[in-house]
Amino acid sequence: MSITTPAGFRAAGVAAGLKSTGAKDVALVVNDGPTFTSASVFTANRCQANPVLWSKEVVKDGTVKAVVLNSGGANCYTGADGFQTTHATAEKVGELLGVGAIDVVVCSTGLIGMKNDRDDLLAGVENAAAGLSAEGGAEAAEAIMTTDSVSKQAVVEGAGWSIGGMAKGAGMLAPQLATMLVVITTDAVVSAEDLDTALRAATRVSFDRLDSDGCMSTNDTVTLMASGASGITPPLGDFTEALTQVCTDLAMQLLKDAEGADHEIAISTINAASEDEAVEVSRSVARSNLFKAAIFGNDPNWGRVLASIGTTGAQFDPADLDVAMNGIWVCRNSTPDADPETVDLTGREVSVTIDLKSGDARATVWTNDLTHAYVHENSAYSS
Amino acid sequence: MSITTPAGFRAAGVAAGLKSTGAKDVALVVNDGPTFTSASVFTANRCQANPVLWSKEVVKDGTVKAVVLNSGGANCYTGADGFQTTHATAEKVGELLGVGAIDVVVCSTGLIGMKNDRDDLLAGVENAAAGLSAEGGAEAAEAIMTTDSVSKQAVVEGAGWSIGGMAKGAGMLAPQLATMLVVITTDAVVSAEDLDTALRAATRVSFDRLDSDGCMSTNDTVTLMASGASGITPPLGDFTEALTQVCTDLAMQLLKDAEGADHEIAISTINAASEDEAVEVSRSVARSNLFKAAIFGNDPNWGRVLASIGTTGAQFDPADLDVAMNGIWVCRNSTPDADPETVDLTGREVSVTIDLKSGDARATVWTNDLTHAYVHENSAYSS
Repeated sequence: MSITTPAGFRAAGVAAGLKSTGAKDVALVVNDGPTFTSASVFTANRCQANPVLWSKEVVKDGTVKAVVLNSGGANCYTGADGFQTTHATAEKVGELLGVGAIDVVVCSTGLIGMKNDRDDLLAGVENAAAGLSAEGGAEAAEAIMTTDSVSKQAVVEGAGWSIGGMAKGAGMLAPQLATMLVVITTDAVVSAEDLDTALRAATRVSFDRLDSDGCMSTNDTVTLMASGASGITPPLGDFTEALTQVCTDLAMQLLKDAEGADHEIAISTINAASEDEAVEVSRSVARSNLFKAAIFGNDPNWGRVLASIGTTGAQFDPADLDVAMNGIWVCRNSTPDADPETVDLTGREVSVTIDLKSGDARATVWTNDLTHAYVHENSAYSS
Repeated sequence: MSITTPAGFRAAGVAAGLKSTGAKDVALVVNDGPTFTSASVFTANRCQANPVLWSKEVVKDGTVKAVVLNSGGANCYTGADGFQTTHATAEKVGELLGVGAIDVVVCSTGLIGMKNDRDDLLAGVENAAAGLSAEGGAEAAEAIMTTDSVSKQAVVEGAGWSIGGMAKGAGMLAPQLATMLVVITTDAVVSAEDLDTALRAATRVSFDRLDSDGCMSTNDTVTLMASGASGITPPLGDFTEALTQVCTDLAMQLLKDAEGADHEIAISTINAASEDEAVEVSRSVARSNLFKAAIFGNDPNWGRVLASIGTTGAQFDPADLDVAMNGIWVCRNSTPDADPETVDLTGREVSVTIDLKSGDARATVWTNDLTHAYVHENSAYSS
């Protein structure tokens, strides 16, 4: 049930001393082939960390043979010296595996503006390479954790092929990815072009619709590698559906483990003129600190929902909006309807449904509530 | 030192029982002329409260003779019945003052989705009209408070003329105004057209650049009335400058009284390609919950500043950004520079300076930190 479930992959996770706690902090995932096709997506932030700058070059030809990841330091805003650390990491992996450094994706996560100790990191890479095994997936998933309270893994089985994934991230989740590292493996035979199509379709409705706190990270990377070891080429539709399941499963694990959150909130906009407008409306609510604080207080404050919808450019009649919370229509035609007292928000899962009455498109964006623990974690610790 | 400092204005503030505390909750401001020119700006939110829907019609001809304001209920998302309450309020003021209801601006603030008691409100209007006086400005400013801890007033004197202002709002401040009611008076002789030009210029660099929590309210109204009682027509440049001073003074009072804030943060972007881009960059930082939580924790976290800048479309080189906090350049060329330990953030006032090195435009956006008290106020109480 990990990234080493699909045939053709080995992985390892070791402690290299980058984390002051002594916990595992270097992971290595290797594709042993016979194919080495891949696809990746990266943060849309223009201020990108050194490993992102490097890895974007690596993935251009559709070939990736290994992914090396470290926690304990993001290697972001660390200048030319930081880039050299990333490059040296890829070189070391290439040397140990007998592959080109230019086929090695590098991911880092942790504090921004702090250099990783290059010697510690490279020694960790050496240990990880020595410990590679077809049972190493769980260890690798553990080694990429930062403020995560649990490691995140998912597997979906196809007909003779499978997809495995691991993810880290427990906050800073935002549109178009955020401090999130994801590695996905498959033993299906899929061209790089089809992997790219499938990955973009899958991330568009999963990771891209997580918006925990509206912030966008500098290091986000999702890399998908196909070993072809099953010898099976599934129909692209089947593959995309399974990949979407893996991504959605991982995204929901990230949502549930978001820093300091008390509630997982699914904001669905229905009957929108277009899917883009449905996303825009749901995201505007997901970004409202007032709304998120209200949910923390178990207050079904639909007025704050309407106030957020009103900031968007979507098609709707401001006097004819309906809003349900946990299935109870507390607002119809932009006026009070069911008694908000009948809405029970004490459970972790909260649903908000917004009916725009302007078409037949829909979309869901997931977010968390704004809690004392969020403020505490993000004021007491740097990242 | 109030809205009744300029000649030609009377005001009153009374308790009408709309607030459960028994505090003052109805204010009336009357222009006794000889001129009745005016200009107004309203929330950009498309979901607007009933008083905004009414008042936007009132101000169209540039003539306003009175502003009636209530706290204790926003009369927002209250449907046709709520609109009738707004209309009845204007009618009552018109009847009592012997003016047309269509020259009476109505403003409301308080809970959304809750109807005001019409009889209580109209009785309050009657009491306010009976209590109108040329010394009533301070009482009026008090009657529009909601979660404000202090009333906000400002006066700037010209050569034989003056401008007075009052404001309420202590959170939900956002671009293009937010739960903020502002009444400004002047005894200068100024045409409605010039008032409009001056007011837009003044609000653009004051209220519009407050972004306390990124949320945009449904009730925001700024109304400026000129009585012409001084008989003096100042140069428009002088008038605009004085008006900008009044608006900036009130904006800073709002910022300092924002709900639950520990810090006032001025985010200045310098050497931008355009003023719009400078505003975009400053606002992106002002919207970052991670950055705002860091400031609450007295952590000069410039990495979160860069991560926010990277989400904008402004012109800059991601590898060549400088950031100062309280005047200390902790980041140069997108890498660490001065020791962050030397930055003292224990005072309430924090400045962040971002050098984009891409032009000569600049702008400042003001925000607050994200605190436990913010979460508490906005989760424990509805609004």
